[in-house]
Amino acid sequence: MTLPTTMKAILKAERAPGLIYVEDYPMPSLKHGEVLVKVQAGSICGTDIHIYKWDEWSQKRLKPPFVVGHEITGVVAAVSPDVDHVAVGDQVSLESHVVCNTCYFCRTGRAHLCEKTQIIGVDRDGGFADYIAIPAQNIWKNSPSTPLPIAVIEENLGNAVHTVMAQDVSAKFVLVTGCGPVGLMAIAVAKAAGARAVIATDVSRYRLDLACQMGADRAVDVRHEDLISIITEVTSGEGIDVLLEMSGAPSAINEGFAALKEGGEAALLGLTPGAFTFDLNAHIVFKGAVVRGIVGRRLWETWYQAHGLLESGALRLDGLVTHTFPMRDFEQAYQTFMSGSSGKIMLIP
Amino acid sequence: MTLPTTMKAILKAERAPGLIYVEDYPMPSLKHGEVLVKVQAGSICGTDIHIYKWDEWSQKRLKPPFVVGHEITGVVAAVSPDVDHVAVGDQVSLESHVVCNTCYFCRTGRAHLCEKTQIIGVDRDGGFADYIAIPAQNIWKNSPSTPLPIAVIEENLGNAVHTVMAQDVSAKFVLVTGCGPVGLMAIAVAKAAGARAVIATDVSRYRLDLACQMGADRAVDVRHEDLISIITEVTSGEGIDVLLEMSGAPSAINEGFAALKEGGEAALLGLTPGAFTFDLNAHIVFKGAVVRGIVGRRLWETWYQAHGLLESGALRLDGLVTHTFPMRDFEQAYQTFMSGSSGKIMLIP
Amino acid sequence: MTLPTTMKAILKAERAPGLIYVEDYPMPSLKHGEVLVKVQAGSICGTDIHIYKWDEWSQKRLKPPFVVGHEITGVVAAVSPDVDHVAVGDQVSLESHVVCNTCYFCRTGRAHLCEKTQIIGVDRDGGFADYIAIPAQNIWKNSPSTPLPIAVIEENLGNAVHTVMAQDVSAKFVLVTGCGPVGLMAIAVAKAAGARAVIATDVSRYRLDLACQMGADRAVDVRHEDLISIITEVTSGEGIDVLLEMSGAPSAINEGFAALKEGGEAALLGLTPGAFTFDLNAHIVFKGAVVRGIVGRRLWETWYQAHGLLESGALRLDGLVTHTFPMRDFEQAYQTFMSGSSGKIMLIP
Amino acid sequence: MTLPTTMKAILKAERAPGLIYVEDYPMPSLKHGEVLVKVQAGSICGTDIHIYKWDEWSQKRLKPPFVVGHEITGVVAAVSPDVDHVAVGDQVSLESHVVCNTCYFCRTGRAHLCEKTQIIGVDRDGGFADYIAIPAQNIWKNSPSTPLPIAVIEENLGNAVHTVMAQDVSAKFVLVTGCGPVGLMAIAVAKAAGARAVIATDVSRYRLDLACQMGADRAVDVRHEDLISIITEVTSGEGIDVLLEMSGAPSAINEGFAALKEGGEAALLGLTPGAFTFDLNAHIVFKGAVVRGIVGRRLWETWYQAHGLLESGALRLDGLVTHTFPMRDFEQAYQTFMSGSSGKIMLIP
Repeated sequence: MTLPTTMKAILKAERAPGLIYVEDYPMPSLKHGEVLVKVQAGSICGTDIHIYKWDEWSQKRLKPPFVVGHEITGVVAAVSPDVDHVAVGDQVSLESHVVCNTCYFCRTGRAHLCEKTQIIGVDRDGGFADYIAIPAQNIWKNSPSTPLPIAVIEENLGNAVHTVMAQDVSAKFVLVTGCGPVGLMAIAVAKAAGARAVIATDVSRYRLDLACQMGADRAVDVRHEDLISIITEVTSGEGIDVLLEMSGAPSAINEGFAALKEGGEAALLGLTPGAFTFDLNAHIVFKGAVVRGIVGRRLWETWYQAHGLLESGALRLDGLVTHTFPMRDFEQAYQTFMSGSSGKIMLIP
Repeated sequence: MTLPTTMKAILKAERAPGLIYVEDYPMPSLKHGEVLVKVQAGSICGTDIHIYKWDEWSQKRLKPPFVVGHEITGVVAAVSPDVDHVAVGDQVSLESHVVCNTCYFCRTGRAHLCEKTQIIGVDRDGGFADYIAIPAQNIWKNSPSTPLPIAVIEENLGNAVHTVMAQDVSAKFVLVTGCGPVGLMAIAVAKAAGARAVIATDVSRYRLDLACQMGADRAVDVRHEDLISIITEVTSGEGIDVLLEMSGAPSAINEGFAALKEGGEAALLGLTPGAFTFDLNAHIVFKGAVVRGIVGRRLWETWYQAHGLLESGALRLDGLVTHTFPMRDFEQAYQTFMSGSSGKIMLIP
Repeated sequence: MTLPTTMKAILKAERAPGLIYVEDYPMPSLKHGEVLVKVQAGSICGTDIHIYKWDEWSQKRLKPPFVVGHEITGVVAAVSPDVDHVAVGDQVSLESHVVCNTCYFCRTGRAHLCEKTQIIGVDRDGGFADYIAIPAQNIWKNSPSTPLPIAVIEENLGNAVHTVMAQDVSAKFVLVTGCGPVGLMAIAVAKAAGARAVIATDVSRYRLDLACQMGADRAVDVRHEDLISIITEVTSGEGIDVLLEMSGAPSAINEGFAALKEGGEAALLGLTPGAFTFDLNAHIVFKGAVVRGIVGRRLWETWYQAHGLLESGALRLDGLVTHTFPMRDFEQAYQTFMSGSSGKIMLIP
Repeated sequence: MTLPTTMKAILKAERAPGLIYVEDYPMPSLKHGEVLVKVQAGSICGTDIHIYKWDEWSQKRLKPPFVVGHEITGVVAAVSPDVDHVAVGDQVSLESHVVCNTCYFCRTGRAHLCEKTQIIGVDRDGGFADYIAIPAQNIWKNSPSTPLPIAVIEENLGNAVHTVMAQDVSAKFVLVTGCGPVGLMAIAVAKAAGARAVIATDVSRYRLDLACQMGADRAVDVRHEDLISIITEVTSGEGIDVLLEMSGAPSAINEGFAALKEGGEAALLGLTPGAFTFDLNAHIVFKGAVVRGIVGRRLWETWYQAHGLLESGALRLDGLVTHTFPMRDFEQAYQTFMSGSSGKIMLIP
């Protein structure tokens, strides 16, 4: 196969809000241990919006210019000569965290905490482009029959699987605070793993409808409904066993912990806007609660779990991708994401 | 309510094979901390067959005469004055292990290992009768709408739930060796908890059909089919993550361990006829396997889990009770059990 | 043995600050399942100070008059006829939490979270007196050779053991924030369990000296020393694996979490004065930390662990009791406690 | 530094019993990702004896000629240009298992179960030589002050640490069956981690004396003493909480399981001569026991744990290396090992 010398790409081109779409970006070169993936689809994540908006976090961390996009699926187009377990033609999804393999965390089965993590589309070129070069160890092989709307969200699904599987949810009452895409997937994962009931909260009717579609037993609009009394009703007064926090909203966090049973467990993925007033006594100490912070995906245990749940048929994510745009229409795609009335949004090169 | 002074009961009357059915057994008296349950149904377990046959184990342990039967559901007819959390009229199932509350195991959350356990229908009067007296702490309250064929098997379901929940099965390949009633329920529980696929084995076509009805992805007749090649096919060569051993057959145990993946987990509930030739190196050490012996039900965590799975709707056991007999026809019921062509068998006073 | 009809006791007599000492308090009567303990010693805990001061918490919870004191050791003087595993003459320490045995938590091995917990010396008569009546299940038997200064602090030691054993500390860097008595015991327990190094913090020179005596590898006066740079030095830049929070001081909590390694674990026992500004992102989420709230002692697993550590000889608490007073001099004892210049303080009837 | 072109080495030269010592073996060449280590010491392991004797296992697995020896310490003499986290001059010990990084086990934090493991001195050239080439990821850096007799046994210590740390031993009664070097180190590790008491068994007086030196509370010669009655005495009738099986002797295994408490845990490292008659009912099922097979070391969590225990000062292994020989006298060293009257034996190039 002859590869082109330039490609289309969505770039964070400069230290300012916005992105640009170009048709003549240089093709990535393959380093030692890397593979080249021809991108078939990408999907947009909240982080992409931070990058678009050029917020405080972006200004501190990013070094434009670079190709954005870290939720990517495609087909392997070339492999470095020293790579022997990935082959041209493999259908793949990408783990977005490029880890060092040599730090304490990488060496103790916790590479998701690698202190030298580089994220594609953030710290190095991403995949909203025709091609991306990435270390072979970041490749997850899919079966050729995996539908594109599933393959493209596997990385993000991994956040949901990591959060849900951080504790046992079988036969438990589960509360998911925040029905963005990861919250929505967490609902479906918790149901697949045998949760007794899943209650989900949000402030968007659109998202609450998706929550029901993903299997939530009860979707609560916290602007208009009283969460605690609904929980009391659904759980016959027992309370919540497992809180999965996906919103990053202090009010949702406080309400979620208030609903948590003594001895309950909480997994926190959502990021708050900053420090806030939190009652450790009431929420953690007196409750004898166990609280876990969730970062990325367990490498690569989470991928195996996600794969297993999808293959079992217990996890169905049909309808989660609600919109598809060609990459050149990225502005429209990002605006749709920001409207709050969408599930996952897919971009096609 | 006026209680009668005698009652119908199935008795192990003497130190010999067989049982007898009597209509004038004295009513049980209520001791301190106990409640009296009017029995609505019982179900037969393998242990009941050992008692019927008067095998070696029975000869060592049993002290006739006593009422048999330990899988029991009914309604509370009377309570000792010092009992305040159970009331006349409560619909209940019974935990069959009466524990001491004061030994090391009872005091460390592991009462299923209580060194002074007394089992109803084995070490003290059981419930194949009109009434049974039992400590209030052995009462599990059901909702009034629980169907009798579910309420009666909850104790036995607890064995399955304890075995399955002894490790995480979500997204895992599970092998259930032995499709007696507990094996059948374990299939359904593993599926409810999100197992990637459940493979079940037996040597009875009748039971393998029930296995499929309970949700097994593949039911293997090990007399005529090659288990290892089927596992290789179903798991794409990966092997089994979790072995749930329900048969007690050395051949099944050896085959099950052979199919287990490195780092796999095994939960053993089945009892073998005695010691047998076992390869610790190949089956446990080289594999880095984790093996757990399973006794009874975790008191009362397992009951809460079973209840949660039933309430969630994820666990369906319809069709597991295949036969119902009046207690007076117990001979026919026991013979049906021994034929191998049955699921659970229910007895009605 | 003939028992007297009245006894000496320290009372919370009315809804106001202070306590009183009386010599003619009525002897407790023995209820069903209870035992009567002749008190040999008690020790003072932070909770006793709250009661003495009649603070907000006290005003809400307490119902004077009642005997105070919940850290108690003595000898069994009488037993209710239905108690058969405790005998007159047994040397005992008391578990202070009287639990219901029938709630969800009691029934799932987590009685420390019992929703109907009654604490002696808080919700019912305590043991700063000649005698105390208490349920037999709250008795922990000591060997007759257990020294009084060990027997009297076993309940409080249980808080330390529960906190330390909530995660594995062997070969780990441990930070103990707060060197009150529980913090001091946590240091000794962590060392006994093979911690790689224990760093302890406080603002009292007296307590930091005791911390060293208990085995701390480094005792840091956070008023005058820079904790983070000391941790960097002691851990060669690795950071803390396990944070044991005993102070309840927001500044200590924030500093403790800042020192925690990614993937680290924190056990929180200290109670803060109220809600405060806490950065969930930095302290828990981004770190992938696991945080556990600690309540009381695991019943009775913690007691067995504490006993095992003491018996092994690995845990030495010599010197922890720094003062002894007769009960009639309770004012002096309480003032000494409040001075901050003491370890445990023992009261003798 | 100029490297020589040939070196001294102990070889498995042909498919027959015995080894040879040569002075002109070709220097190893450095492959991609590898480092060259100048060997300062090696130590002899049971596997080395199998290789020496050319037993059935050896005949199946080995492909002479190759350099033997897998417990190695030395100093880095050269590094491949693509290696950046190891430097010439580093003092190191070697992990002997060379793993693939790409299989399911390597990708889920369980590289000790890697299905393509190559062991140095077994499947590829080992380190009883002047130099060895090995992947950089197999390097463990020591502080320059680590004594040679500690540095040389770290790989083997890892087996002990992995076995002991597979369950919590703090405050527990521990039985170590088999006082070969790994058993001896397991005694010391269990004591460092706060075991309540460690009982050790063997049939060699020499080794039982070393067991006491390593900290065993009781060393039992099972030829002349009754283990069960000694355990009953030491544990006041409670029995053993944790069995660490290091002997591979069926009689020791059966005796060890017989001594195990209900709910106890067993970690099996010893390899039996083959399958044997084992009572799963009595030893595992009825006991509700948890049994773990142990393979190698957790990569590299076990190394961090071993390092932490050594650094803490809690783990002392002085006296474990009982003999030192120059490599040319390997015959004498191997004979000493086979005599049973030795601890670890060190070889110096």
